[in-house]
Amino acid sequence: MFLMRIGPVGEERAAVRVGDDAYVDVSDEVGDFDERFFGSGGMSRLPEVVERLLAAGTQRPVAGQRVGAPIARPHQILCIGLNYSDHAAETGQAVPAEPIVFTKSPNTLIGPDDDVHVPRGSEKTDWEVELGIVIGQRCRYLPDEAAAAAAIAGYVTVNDVSERAFQMERGGQWVKGKSCETFNPCGPVLATPDEVPDLADLPMWLDVNGVRRQTGSTATMLFGPHFIVHYLSQFMVLEPGDLINTGTPPGVGMGQRPPVFLRPGDVMELGISVLGSQRQQVVAAP
Amino acid sequence: MFLMRIGPVGEERAAVRVGDDAYVDVSDEVGDFDERFFGSGGMSRLPEVVERLLAAGTQRPVAGQRVGAPIARPHQILCIGLNYSDHAAETGQAVPAEPIVFTKSPNTLIGPDDDVHVPRGSEKTDWEVELGIVIGQRCRYLPDEAAAAAAIAGYVTVNDVSERAFQMERGGQWVKGKSCETFNPCGPVLATPDEVPDLADLPMWLDVNGVRRQTGSTATMLFGPHFIVHYLSQFMVLEPGDLINTGTPPGVGMGQRPPVFLRPGDVMELGISVLGSQRQQVVAAP
Repeated sequence: MFLMRIGPVGEERAAVRVGDDAYVDVSDEVGDFDERFFGSGGMSRLPEVVERLLAAGTQRPVAGQRVGAPIARPHQILCIGLNYSDHAAETGQAVPAEPIVFTKSPNTLIGPDDDVHVPRGSEKTDWEVELGIVIGQRCRYLPDEAAAAAAIAGYVTVNDVSERAFQMERGGQWVKGKSCETFNPCGPVLATPDEVPDLADLPMWLDVNGVRRQTGSTATMLFGPHFIVHYLSQFMVLEPGDLINTGTPPGVGMGQRPPVFLRPGDVMELGISVLGSQRQQVVAAP
Repeated sequence: MFLMRIGPVGEERAAVRVGDDAYVDVSDEVGDFDERFFGSGGMSRLPEVVERLLAAGTQRPVAGQRVGAPIARPHQILCIGLNYSDHAAETGQAVPAEPIVFTKSPNTLIGPDDDVHVPRGSEKTDWEVELGIVIGQRCRYLPDEAAAAAAIAGYVTVNDVSERAFQMERGGQWVKGKSCETFNPCGPVLATPDEVPDLADLPMWLDVNGVRRQTGSTATMLFGPHFIVHYLSQFMVLEPGDLINTGTPPGVGMGQRPPVFLRPGDVMELGISVLGSQRQQVVAAP
């Protein structure tokens, strides 16, 4: 299944994509794709709901609709740092011995094609295409990676937008450069694990103004999704609907020679196989 | 006003303390003390609600009731690191030039007298009495500290429980040692700013097993509450009900010679003038 949320900002309705370009609105049946939905077994009820709505002929075209993030604002957004060996190299940092964990404010979540703001005073706003994991059930001291795999609701494309000066030149912890308004475009779909058989070798890419900047694959991740979810559950409790950004391949702006950063008017286009693509206009923060 | 939440875990009801040891249950009138409440002007409606409930004679004694955190699980818990010059010295770190910001998972929030877990595999669980700020309205690029002061709903006592090995020996970012289950006791009350005229010189203390470990005052904070809220709003959007832990005075376990860390069976007692005191039994994480 491919979950979506469709409608104006703040009024998105839960939907399931059918075929390539249509959807059924499931919000009257299951509410929103939020902590309550994932935590109450909503995913297992969804196929029957979709079948019934399809039989009733309620599908509509996606074209012309605004697409939101495929999940509601989560309890937390966790991120894994330097999780591709070649990206660690381009930032001049060592490959980590175990996952580096940091966070973004949950209210950074926006739709895949919404505008991204260059924060006031920013000189170093940067891009990061990433595989995102959405948690499907409460995770606390998971016993092994198999239990972690079973706790994953699905996968999303995210852009882990970052302000490098705020992140690394303003006092030591990364969250300050990761939590600016609009800094987490997500979607267009949440793909359930059965739709992603090639999880360990998913191609991903990112263009700025039509110039290819990032080319990578989950094949070069240091710590895979099942490892990460098991690992995190030893330190904290993951809630249903939590989002985990799993790190970015090489080609971020600060890794260019000379570095390249985002300016109002720029356009980012990015995507991951199966999980779909995004397009963001960069604007100055109002 | 002094806001409280009273009742079993997960079933807390919003209340306002009247006098020293009684309360009125305002939950039927205002719902919970959550983002919706603070963001919809709930604080300004509260005095009239309390007056009406008092006139109706509905006050009850606090004694014998479980007291929860005085706010519902927030959108985010932000923390300021090394915000007391003498605490920075005891950790061997430099006084920061501007606030160090890190986060805790929001689901770490518990009541002031609930059990605190020593995480599995932990050898260095530590304490930190702190002044907490609760945000009263959405904050985005606040123009000055006066606007920040106006955006604060009130103040709380928090224990910013920390696992030092997870925080500093496991890969670079602090959140890993700050987000363990039960690591943010909060309360017993949220005191509105008018109840805290001595905000800039509030005594605070923490005992472990009856031994005084922390003695301090907000008078030695490097960055005060209004500065912090204004500062944070330049980097991210604060939501109504967000909690900000503002840093701890000297006397944490890792600052003792030799270091002292928490073990199951220990008891922490801590408090801040006006904001009230807490008592936590330390237990092994089940």
